[in-house]
Amino acid sequence: MKALCYHGPRSITYDSAPDPKLEDDRDVVIKTLACSICGSDLHIYHGFDFTDQTGFCVGHEVVGEVVEMGSAVRMLKIGDQVMIPGAISCGSCPQCLKGNTRRCVQGLQVYGQGRSQTSHQGSQAEAVRIPAADFNARRIPEGISAEQALMLTDALPTAWLGCRNADIRPGVTVAIVGLGPIGLMAVQCAFALGAARVFAIDLVPERRAMAERFGAEPLEPAVARQAITEATHGAMAECVVDAVGADATLALALRLAGNEGTVSLIGVNTSQKFEFPVGRTLVNNLTFRAGLCSIQPFWPELIPLVQQGRIRPEQVITHRLPLSQGEEAYRIFDGRLDGALKMVLTP
Amino acid sequence: MKALCYHGPRSITYDSAPDPKLEDDRDVVIKTLACSICGSDLHIYHGFDFTDQTGFCVGHEVVGEVVEMGSAVRMLKIGDQVMIPGAISCGSCPQCLKGNTRRCVQGLQVYGQGRSQTSHQGSQAEAVRIPAADFNARRIPEGISAEQALMLTDALPTAWLGCRNADIRPGVTVAIVGLGPIGLMAVQCAFALGAARVFAIDLVPERRAMAERFGAEPLEPAVARQAITEATHGAMAECVVDAVGADATLALALRLAGNEGTVSLIGVNTSQKFEFPVGRTLVNNLTFRAGLCSIQPFWPELIPLVQQGRIRPEQVITHRLPLSQGEEAYRIFDGRLDGALKMVLTP
Amino acid sequence: MKALCYHGPRSITYDSAPDPKLEDDRDVVIKTLACSICGSDLHIYHGFDFTDQTGFCVGHEVVGEVVEMGSAVRMLKIGDQVMIPGAISCGSCPQCLKGNTRRCVQGLQVYGQGRSQTSHQGSQAEAVRIPAADFNARRIPEGISAEQALMLTDALPTAWLGCRNADIRPGVTVAIVGLGPIGLMAVQCAFALGAARVFAIDLVPERRAMAERFGAEPLEPAVARQAITEATHGAMAECVVDAVGADATLALALRLAGNEGTVSLIGVNTSQKFEFPVGRTLVNNLTFRAGLCSIQPFWPELIPLVQQGRIRPEQVITHRLPLSQGEEAYRIFDGRLDGALKMVLTP
Amino acid sequence: MKALCYHGPRSITYDSAPDPKLEDDRDVVIKTLACSICGSDLHIYHGFDFTDQTGFCVGHEVVGEVVEMGSAVRMLKIGDQVMIPGAISCGSCPQCLKGNTRRCVQGLQVYGQGRSQTSHQGSQAEAVRIPAADFNARRIPEGISAEQALMLTDALPTAWLGCRNADIRPGVTVAIVGLGPIGLMAVQCAFALGAARVFAIDLVPERRAMAERFGAEPLEPAVARQAITEATHGAMAECVVDAVGADATLALALRLAGNEGTVSLIGVNTSQKFEFPVGRTLVNNLTFRAGLCSIQPFWPELIPLVQQGRIRPEQVITHRLPLSQGEEAYRIFDGRLDGALKMVLTP
Repeated sequence: MKALCYHGPRSITYDSAPDPKLEDDRDVVIKTLACSICGSDLHIYHGFDFTDQTGFCVGHEVVGEVVEMGSAVRMLKIGDQVMIPGAISCGSCPQCLKGNTRRCVQGLQVYGQGRSQTSHQGSQAEAVRIPAADFNARRIPEGISAEQALMLTDALPTAWLGCRNADIRPGVTVAIVGLGPIGLMAVQCAFALGAARVFAIDLVPERRAMAERFGAEPLEPAVARQAITEATHGAMAECVVDAVGADATLALALRLAGNEGTVSLIGVNTSQKFEFPVGRTLVNNLTFRAGLCSIQPFWPELIPLVQQGRIRPEQVITHRLPLSQGEEAYRIFDGRLDGALKMVLTP
Repeated sequence: MKALCYHGPRSITYDSAPDPKLEDDRDVVIKTLACSICGSDLHIYHGFDFTDQTGFCVGHEVVGEVVEMGSAVRMLKIGDQVMIPGAISCGSCPQCLKGNTRRCVQGLQVYGQGRSQTSHQGSQAEAVRIPAADFNARRIPEGISAEQALMLTDALPTAWLGCRNADIRPGVTVAIVGLGPIGLMAVQCAFALGAARVFAIDLVPERRAMAERFGAEPLEPAVARQAITEATHGAMAECVVDAVGADATLALALRLAGNEGTVSLIGVNTSQKFEFPVGRTLVNNLTFRAGLCSIQPFWPELIPLVQQGRIRPEQVITHRLPLSQGEEAYRIFDGRLDGALKMVLTP
Repeated sequence: MKALCYHGPRSITYDSAPDPKLEDDRDVVIKTLACSICGSDLHIYHGFDFTDQTGFCVGHEVVGEVVEMGSAVRMLKIGDQVMIPGAISCGSCPQCLKGNTRRCVQGLQVYGQGRSQTSHQGSQAEAVRIPAADFNARRIPEGISAEQALMLTDALPTAWLGCRNADIRPGVTVAIVGLGPIGLMAVQCAFALGAARVFAIDLVPERRAMAERFGAEPLEPAVARQAITEATHGAMAECVVDAVGADATLALALRLAGNEGTVSLIGVNTSQKFEFPVGRTLVNNLTFRAGLCSIQPFWPELIPLVQQGRIRPEQVITHRLPLSQGEEAYRIFDGRLDGALKMVLTP
Repeated sequence: MKALCYHGPRSITYDSAPDPKLEDDRDVVIKTLACSICGSDLHIYHGFDFTDQTGFCVGHEVVGEVVEMGSAVRMLKIGDQVMIPGAISCGSCPQCLKGNTRRCVQGLQVYGQGRSQTSHQGSQAEAVRIPAADFNARRIPEGISAEQALMLTDALPTAWLGCRNADIRPGVTVAIVGLGPIGLMAVQCAFALGAARVFAIDLVPERRAMAERFGAEPLEPAVARQAITEATHGAMAECVVDAVGADATLALALRLAGNEGTVSLIGVNTSQKFEFPVGRTLVNNLTFRAGLCSIQPFWPELIPLVQQGRIRPEQVITHRLPLSQGEEAYRIFDGRLDGALKMVLTP
């Protein structure tokens, strides 16, 4: 098959790769309908952290059609169109069975981060093997397009987690720091959770404009604190989401929260020594919550919201390219060229 | 002053009545800006239950301007425009202080139901006395019109309670039985609480049409069960609100709820021997919840939703008449003439 | 093997029965360590409802040791001691995966109710087949005795559900109507959930005495309403559990609930026309909730409470007999002889 | 009257002071029945932060008897025994009316911190003036002793807030860091909230011994992390309370929390640049919550727990002295002499 493979910093190319095969009687193999590039794929593209290895296929957001199926698969059949969570798990252990797939007793399994034991070949490829498919592959529900399903595999649940973790509830004032695809979906999620008003903060005018089309009040980072202070007569935001993960964005997020407020971090921040305003947190009765996402538990509430058009995650897709132009897609996405937000690739 | 007074069944007329006066140093007197007719006012209009007395002023939904003020009032000043909860309370007892005004240790106080100890002269009048005004009169927040504030005094919080009691939350399917003003506001509230889809059920085509404009799927009662069964593939509604209170509407509401669903009653049903399907409730794991409303506790979440236009309760106002035409207003409202939903009267 | 089999009303005898065998590669067969008699087994013993068939093994509460194992079982090994939920399910469908096993898309599967498609041979037997064993058989956690595990298979989670459904939370006053094994466990669960005081109501003095040892205030049904009125100065109970399911107990339960209270039904009541006090429910803002239990979702919170001795469900076991004396055990249990509460049988 | 007054670092003496008088028609004056010394009183005793002034009365925890009453007081009468929240407020503004007294629009009012506008004469005195008494003085409920009521004025609600903020719920494993009076009460609160096990950490053996008598597993700080790791097989605590507020205790608390856990800070930590492990917080999905306490909202759930003996806050009282020996009491408390925990003074 053909797939996008990593060969070193800024070198991801469209290559031939071995066809995936069933390796266990609970596996399925899917033929890719569409896959997308996640912000975290850029970490690989930039060449850091994950691996010294090269040659592996990248990507972890995919929807596809079942083309091969192991004998122990019960819930699927050949031809089913399915969506796959961005990280998968055994599906049998108590953690998986209570929906906390991130804490799978067997270890969370990822796609496209190199050939370690817990990383499978990536899904920016013509075909993908799905282990424990009854658990990890879910038939795309009626009324959900392939592109919407693709957003449900990773980005939209992450935005939803960020909003849930911020305690967004009916009537609140929200601030979203960072309007990449996840921040923009968080704007939609915040309204779906009942937010009365949402301040949307980013340096890039096009991103602010899209947030405004979604109903938010756009703000540049430099003026955000002052503007929210004025707009709320000093009450500030009850719920704040840092969808970036830089120290500066987290510091800003913490300054935007009012008394009894909650600050939620979903952007990846790896600092172990962030200078945290504990004293102000105490006096203002703040909550700070961070976390990465177990995908499947959010599907029951997200699917009907997407089916009924209350959330339209496909609106953040800016580029649709053939998989064969994946190298170009990475270049555009990395450079934020041409208003790039979410990139979808189809074989 | 002039006021609408009750003289017997179907006889409410525009009369002279004594001017309200301060009776306690915590009172204020307000000059009415606008008042409205509640469905429950029709109980009085029809002459049952409340009283044998005649001559009293009717009405309990009012916004006004402070024109007189007792010496112990701290939070208000002359000229403030205020909204008054449909039922008031002492504001000092532990029940009031935890927001459960309906259980005021001194007894809930109502307006416009006759001259009993706990009933004050009604507020369909040019002026109204407000006891314990620091507690019972709230300045109309900026960005809220007088008509919106009027809806916040009773009808909108009742609709909100009905939806809260139905456990409406993001992603659910809702059914609202009965599309009077409260049922129609419940459609708006359901969406503000995150409902993915709302079925709106009423016999009257104009009411269904308004619900449809609010985003709901309109249904006639006779076909509601079958239509929801088909639309949900048998899952039915997770949350059902009976906004009427007849035995037939409650029976229908209970049939529309799916497994693990909740049925909420806000319409007034006084049956003590309703034939309840306990067996099905057990097998289907249902919740049934009924209740009347404490107004003030809902204001913190409702006010920002109205300010930002997420809920537009004034859209159910169909008639605006001078208070002097109150007799005619009751006739129209009682007869459901001319598409009558919410009637607003201004002195 | 030997097992207890049903031969008609009041005839359950210790017979030979076919050995269970693996029928699917996800099955295990367990050798019974202990099994128990549930109140619902008496429905079969009395010969009603379930079946015209005879000869089938009865029982659905069991702990055992894995002695045979299909090739697709991943989480267990031969020799593991396991507990089995009182009703089992496919373990693969979305409902099972979100813990709602009662709504398994493939249908809930029961033990010991006759040879219908969804009923397996009962577990009051020397050995039992467990389908979808990775999902349905859970290794007994360390610090949990076999008898405690046996209570975790059905009775204790049902008592817990009854208390959860009654909204029991820190500081509340609770009333439990009916002190069979589940009602008595509900007393323990209520305290574990933070109840400040628990009124425990039953006709049988020994049962009231046991409830009192658990910390409850015992009451006879005839005086319960008056006694609780006095003890609470009219506030009544915030949370009420009907652990019987008769119309009379439900009517009593509804009378014991105070304003804003919740009444929970876990006893089996099949009435479709119970005379329900809807009017009082509305005025008092009551919640009524009924439901049958999905077992596994409650294990994560119950297991540590049992491990640490906060809940001691084994204290309701009054009789321990060999399986061969099962006929006698049913006679004692049915007659409530000798203070019988929970009967445990061991092969 | 006589009172304890501040004259500089480590100089608090038993002096004559002006009798308190009614200053507003909503005031009452109480005759002190008992007062206690809070850990935060030591900040004053040590002479920092609060004030350059001297001569003012100290203390903010008090129960007393109403001896004088303004004309606008409605809920109290002469002779009532009352408890007073550690900080008081206007009782009329929307924040007070929704229970968030800390955010009183008029400003939170404290006792015993000097003669600033928002600080009243302290309550370690023979008599105390209570403004807005209907709101700020609550009759001591039946079944609550004066000493228990005294603990309800400040320390016990603070412990409860710490546990609530830690998301303590049925079945969880808890760690409490610091076993002063509040930490020890937090041990009791944790069990009242349903904790399955509580690890209690302090340097002082007597304090650990008391925690053990309350049901906790005592640990020295140096071994706490290792011991909890072993006891929980690496799962760590789901809920952690830092009841000290030092950087070292907060750092320890953060290390004791397991995945999806919550760390709550109630000890006073004023750092604005605490080195926070944001990266670990993200990977482990942690919540950090800090806050100071509004007292009254917790009374409805705490009072019945104290009445029924589920929480026994008076057990942390180690010293009972006459008010005239207050100077000695401060010396003992400051030096942690003689096992000093909570000091109660009576005029």
